[in-house]
Amino acid sequence: MNYKMTVFIIGKMLGVEGALLLIPAMVAFLYGEKSGLTFLMVSVVLFLIFFVFGRKVPENKTIYGKEGLVIVGSAWILWSLFGAMPFTLSGTIPNYLDAFFETVSGFTTTGSTILTEIESLPKGMLFWRSLTHWIGGMGVLVFVMMLTSLDDENSMHLMRAEVPGPEADKLVPKARSTAKILYMMYFVLTAAEVVFLLFGGMNFYDALIHAFSTAGTGGFSNKNSSIAFYDSAYIDGVITVFMILFGVNFNLYFLIRMKDWKTALKNEELRAYLGIIAGSIALITVNILSMYGNIMHAFRYASFQVAAVITTTGFCTANFDLWPELSKVILLGLMVIGACAGSTGGGIKVSRLLILIKSVRQEIKRMLHPKSVTLVQINGKKVGRDTMHSVYIYFICYILILMGSVFLVAFNNYDFTTTFSAVMTTLNNVGPGLAQVGPIENFYDFSPLSKIVFCLDMLVGRLEIFPYLLLLSPDLWRRKF
Amino acid sequence: MNYKMTVFIIGKMLGVEGALLLIPAMVAFLYGEKSGLTFLMVSVVLFLIFFVFGRKVPENKTIYGKEGLVIVGSAWILWSLFGAMPFTLSGTIPNYLDAFFETVSGFTTTGSTILTEIESLPKGMLFWRSLTHWIGGMGVLVFVMMLTSLDDENSMHLMRAEVPGPEADKLVPKARSTAKILYMMYFVLTAAEVVFLLFGGMNFYDALIHAFSTAGTGGFSNKNSSIAFYDSAYIDGVITVFMILFGVNFNLYFLIRMKDWKTALKNEELRAYLGIIAGSIALITVNILSMYGNIMHAFRYASFQVAAVITTTGFCTANFDLWPELSKVILLGLMVIGACAGSTGGGIKVSRLLILIKSVRQEIKRMLHPKSVTLVQINGKKVGRDTMHSVYIYFICYILILMGSVFLVAFNNYDFTTTFSAVMTTLNNVGPGLAQVGPIENFYDFSPLSKIVFCLDMLVGRLEIFPYLLLLSPDLWRRKF
Repeated sequence: MNYKMTVFIIGKMLGVEGALLLIPAMVAFLYGEKSGLTFLMVSVVLFLIFFVFGRKVPENKTIYGKEGLVIVGSAWILWSLFGAMPFTLSGTIPNYLDAFFETVSGFTTTGSTILTEIESLPKGMLFWRSLTHWIGGMGVLVFVMMLTSLDDENSMHLMRAEVPGPEADKLVPKARSTAKILYMMYFVLTAAEVVFLLFGGMNFYDALIHAFSTAGTGGFSNKNSSIAFYDSAYIDGVITVFMILFGVNFNLYFLIRMKDWKTALKNEELRAYLGIIAGSIALITVNILSMYGNIMHAFRYASFQVAAVITTTGFCTANFDLWPELSKVILLGLMVIGACAGSTGGGIKVSRLLILIKSVRQEIKRMLHPKSVTLVQINGKKVGRDTMHSVYIYFICYILILMGSVFLVAFNNYDFTTTFSAVMTTLNNVGPGLAQVGPIENFYDFSPLSKIVFCLDMLVGRLEIFPYLLLLSPDLWRRKF
Repeated sequence: MNYKMTVFIIGKMLGVEGALLLIPAMVAFLYGEKSGLTFLMVSVVLFLIFFVFGRKVPENKTIYGKEGLVIVGSAWILWSLFGAMPFTLSGTIPNYLDAFFETVSGFTTTGSTILTEIESLPKGMLFWRSLTHWIGGMGVLVFVMMLTSLDDENSMHLMRAEVPGPEADKLVPKARSTAKILYMMYFVLTAAEVVFLLFGGMNFYDALIHAFSTAGTGGFSNKNSSIAFYDSAYIDGVITVFMILFGVNFNLYFLIRMKDWKTALKNEELRAYLGIIAGSIALITVNILSMYGNIMHAFRYASFQVAAVITTTGFCTANFDLWPELSKVILLGLMVIGACAGSTGGGIKVSRLLILIKSVRQEIKRMLHPKSVTLVQINGKKVGRDTMHSVYIYFICYILILMGSVFLVAFNNYDFTTTFSAVMTTLNNVGPGLAQVGPIENFYDFSPLSKIVFCLDMLVGRLEIFPYLLLLSPDLWRRKF
């Protein structure tokens, strides 16, 4: 393994985090909050690390898939460890494990919180909390790639390890240019949402916070009651639409920008994604109708919550824990499915689900006609054997991790619904779960063991398992490379 | 598809069921129960069907894997449809859907019941109920194969479709002889359990009932409180040991009979199975210690329940729904794992779990050394690509069916623990679940839709998905073969 290059890239990345911490520092000073100093303190430490490790480019710059996974896996942990420090140093979240949980939840765009009271927090802290969603949504490494100058070949290994979905594509020949295009579209969409929210009467600070959280499909709000605070059909509508937009594969926006509407709208994953959303909204609307009296109300809360959960954003406008079991089970199902590949959302991704279902159909055909050759196709293109295999392994790992996490969290002796939905919501980067981790509850009361499990689940969910599978493998550490 | 041969074999099978129904008829007459007549009535109908369809051997006797799956899939449904009739005709279970549920639960060796009161039922009916476990345990088709004279090649397709596990082996060159050996070992073990239970003071009738249910890893008892009724450490111990024995791959008993102890004891699946049992007993014993006061008591109830659940028998000596969450989650996990391949137990089977875990380890190795060729091995033998693929597809289907069933049962609006554990316990052929389907509860109150879903889950679980995947495929019915 190319250790020097690994350390170099990580050093560079920590420098970027140091720079990013200056943003909440500025916000804090604008609001005259002393706690803003803690951002500067951590920033200085990160710059020092950068100057030691991240300045001299190693001679051998070559890295492979392996290094890509190791760098991505370690980088996210390190970013979270440093990103959590201002919360603890300022006394906002006195317990460092809690602060780490909150930061991991931020970068992984989960949105689960250990905070019992949000609104009294310093504005700089809340800004940083939502900014982590925005940065984490597109990927911390993709962000670093955009800013720094890595070789193209090497960058692609990093990008593959971080961008969600079974296959990462380059939009343009250069990985770095691809990263720039992605971030540009991300920025434009975020800015558009800010404008729409301002029109709804939200102040600029709140609009930024909620646009960051929507864009990253995170879900942190600066209000205790989340979006329900505004009680506005307009704001609900705007956020519903933007959540759905941020759950779409960004490659499609690139196609649309290139005026290739036809290919974009024919995309099978997009159609399945919109179909699942429409079906779920219809079922839940009917299911909760008696609770909300009229169909417009029921539709408004159903569509918001469906969009919030399938995109794994996790905002709330209703306490869906009180909804009938069918609605709750649909929401749990949407958590697993998640958004589209190449979006900022979590879950196993619609495209993986399509591949899994098509594999089953292919197997039935094989049973009927043992000699025929049947292939799994997505968008008219054959899905390669390696991709299929990695989707299978991903799914197996996903279920095994789910089972293992439920086992470990069960030590906490909460009821099964709480235990199971807490693991589901963290592993799929959603935010709220059911029962004691429902929309109006939080993760404060869990034991340190459970909190560590949740942190790992959030990281494993966001980076799609493989980086941590590799980092946890004894083989990686045992042998010389 | 060879329709003639398919109909012929099914006709033959129904004749065998007609013959089997004479056994409970005899028991009923011994106890002077008039309800026994209903067994004779159904028996006559089955004999008529046999004479029409199951006597004249078709000219083209060749069947393939496809026909094997279709025959097995339909046969189990037909056996259950006819096997349920005596319950309804005699008024024991007035609702035919309930009677069907009970019979499917019997043949699939699940042991879930819709009965709220068991002990008042006629003895002939209770005998038939437990006998279905015994027949279903080894497989209705394997049983028919033993009795009738099918070609060897053709028999193997039937056997592969019915015997649980990723690969079905012939013990001896002829499939029919293999079936005979399997049933002989099954008979000897069952008889041994009867003797041991008689020593514990159980009467002959009860001993037969419980030996049938243990052998088939079913779980029906003729007592409302299951094995807890006897409150005997000796009986608990005997049944615990026999449950574990019936969860072992029967091929190993054949090896032992051939004096090949070494190969049998080195078997990886056996070791994993016993390891999981030992670990689970240890954890649950500690976890429930405070509830039972002393370690011997805790150990007794923990070991019984672990054996009952991992082998998917589902007998109860304790209301484990009152145990701490950790114990309950371990039991849920054991439901998924299930017993060994080639045993009478359900679940995904220990060998499949081993293959899944080894696939993940292989993938990690491939990430570290992309060019090296790594293989998954079980018992020192390479697992073939086709077997691996079918294990993956099986697991994907299993999870998708689990999710789909939870969704459909959620229409019943029970709490999540009930909904989820009811699906888990039926899909894995265990018997009791948690909360409202806990050890002291039953399935009576569910809606017809839910009961149909449970019946399908039990069948799909017992026959390991593929037969029903094929039967439900529109392709099978649409095209001419």
